Amino acid sequence: MNLTLFAAPGSCSRVALTALAAAGLPCTLAWVDLAGGQQRQPVYLALNPKGKVPLLDTPEGTLSDNLAIATWVDAQAPAAGVLPAAGFARAEAMGWLGWAAGTLHPLVYRLRMSARIHPDAATHEAIRAAARAELQAALGAAEAVLADGRDWLGGARWSLADTYVAWAIGRAQLSGVELTALPRLTAFMARHDALPAWRQALAQEPA
Amino acid sequence: MNLTLFAAPGSCSRVALTALAAAGLPCTLAWVDLAGGQQRQPVYLALNPKGKVPLLDTPEGTLSDNLAIATWVDAQAPAAGVLPAAGFARAEAMGWLGWAAGTLHPLVYRLRMSARIHPDAATHEAIRAAARAELQAALGAAEAVLADGRDWLGGARWSLADTYVAWAIGRAQLSGVELTALPRLTAFMARHDALPAWRQALAQEPA
Repeated sequence: MNLTLFAAPGSCSRVALTALAAAGLPCTLAWVDLAGGQQRQPVYLALNPKGKVPLLDTPEGTLSDNLAIATWVDAQAPAAGVLPAAGFARAEAMGWLGWAAGTLHPLVYRLRMSARIHPDAATHEAIRAAARAELQAALGAAEAVLADGRDWLGGARWSLADTYVAWAIGRAQLSGVELTALPRLTAFMARHDALPAWRQALAQEPA
Repeated sequence: MNLTLFAAPGSCSRVALTALAAAGLPCTLAWVDLAGGQQRQPVYLALNPKGKVPLLDTPEGTLSDNLAIATWVDAQAPAAGVLPAAGFARAEAMGWLGWAAGTLHPLVYRLRMSARIHPDAATHEAIRAAARAELQAALGAAEAVLADGRDWLGGARWSLADTYVAWAIGRAQLSGVELTALPRLTAFMARHDALPAWRQALAQEPA
C-alpha cells in the first residue's frame, strides 16, 4: 500500500508517524517547511486546503488531522491498539485525543507561536505566562486521572491518545512548563519516551 | 437508560446535545454556570477533572469532550448517522471533528475570551483581529471543500462534524466574522440551522 505522510519535524505530525509505526505501515515522508510557509503555498493548499500537517495520502484519498489518521490507521491494523476496540474505552480514548487536540495543542500554540496571537512582541511574555498557567491547570487533570496507578490515560494499555498528550507536554516543556509537582505525569512521560513506535517516529525525523 | 449531560447554554455542549437529539436519546440536563466559574469548583472537578463542559454521565461512566460523546452516542444508535459507519468516510468525519475542536474552537476562544489570552484589555482588539483573520482563512478551507456542490462537509449526508463546525462559525459570527464572501458556507449554515436535531438542542437551552 502506497502511503505518503506530509509532516514537519517536531510538529504534531509526530503523532501520526507514531500511529503508522505502531501499525507497522511503512510510509514515504514528505517534509513540509512550516517556518518557510510552505503549508500556505498554492501547491500544498491544493493537497490540503486546511494548510496544516499532518496529511496522509492513502489509496482511498487524503486525510488531514491526527484524529482522521488515527481512525484510519486503526482500521487497517486493529490488533496494533492505536485505538481501543469499539465500546466505552474507545469513546474515552477519543476524549483524550480531543483534549490533546482541542485543549493542550492550542495552549502550546499560544506558548510557542505568540507572534500569531498578537503582533507586538511586548505582549508575548504575558501571553505565554497565561498559556503556561492554563497548561499547568490542565496537566493537573491528567495527574489526577493517573492517581489510581494506571500506566496510561485509558488504563493498562497505551493508545495514540497518550502519544498526542505526551507530544504536547514535550513541546510545553521546551517553553518552560515544569512537571516537578506532577510525579505521575513525569513517570508517564518516561514510559512514553521508551515506546518503540514513538522512538521509531523520532528516528524518522531529520535532526 | 439514565443519561445526564452537564452543559452550558451557547457553549460547545450544544454539539453533544445535538448528538443525543439525533440519536433519540433523552437526557437530564445539568446546567453549569461557566461565567460564575462553577466548572472550576471542587464539586464539578470531582466529576470532570478537565473542568469543562460537555460531560456526559452514562451507565458505563462519564465521558468528557464532544469527540468522546460523539463516539459513544453513535455506538448506541448507529442508524442515526451521528458519525458515518466505519471506513474512510468515518476517518474523514473524525478529521472534521478534530478540525472544529482543534482549529476553529480555539480561534473562537481567542476571539471571545481574549481576557484569558492576555490580562491587559488594551491588547484585546489586536488579539481578536488576529483570530478573526485566521478564522477567515480557515473558513476558506471549508468553502473550498463545498465547491463541488456537496451539502455537507463529508458529502451527501450530515454528520456531527457539520454541527461542531456550524456551532463554531455561529459563535464567530457573534464576534464580527462575516460569511459574505463565502456563499457555499452561507448556504451550509442555513441548511444546518434547519436540522431537527439542532433545533431540538437549541430549544432545550434556557434563553
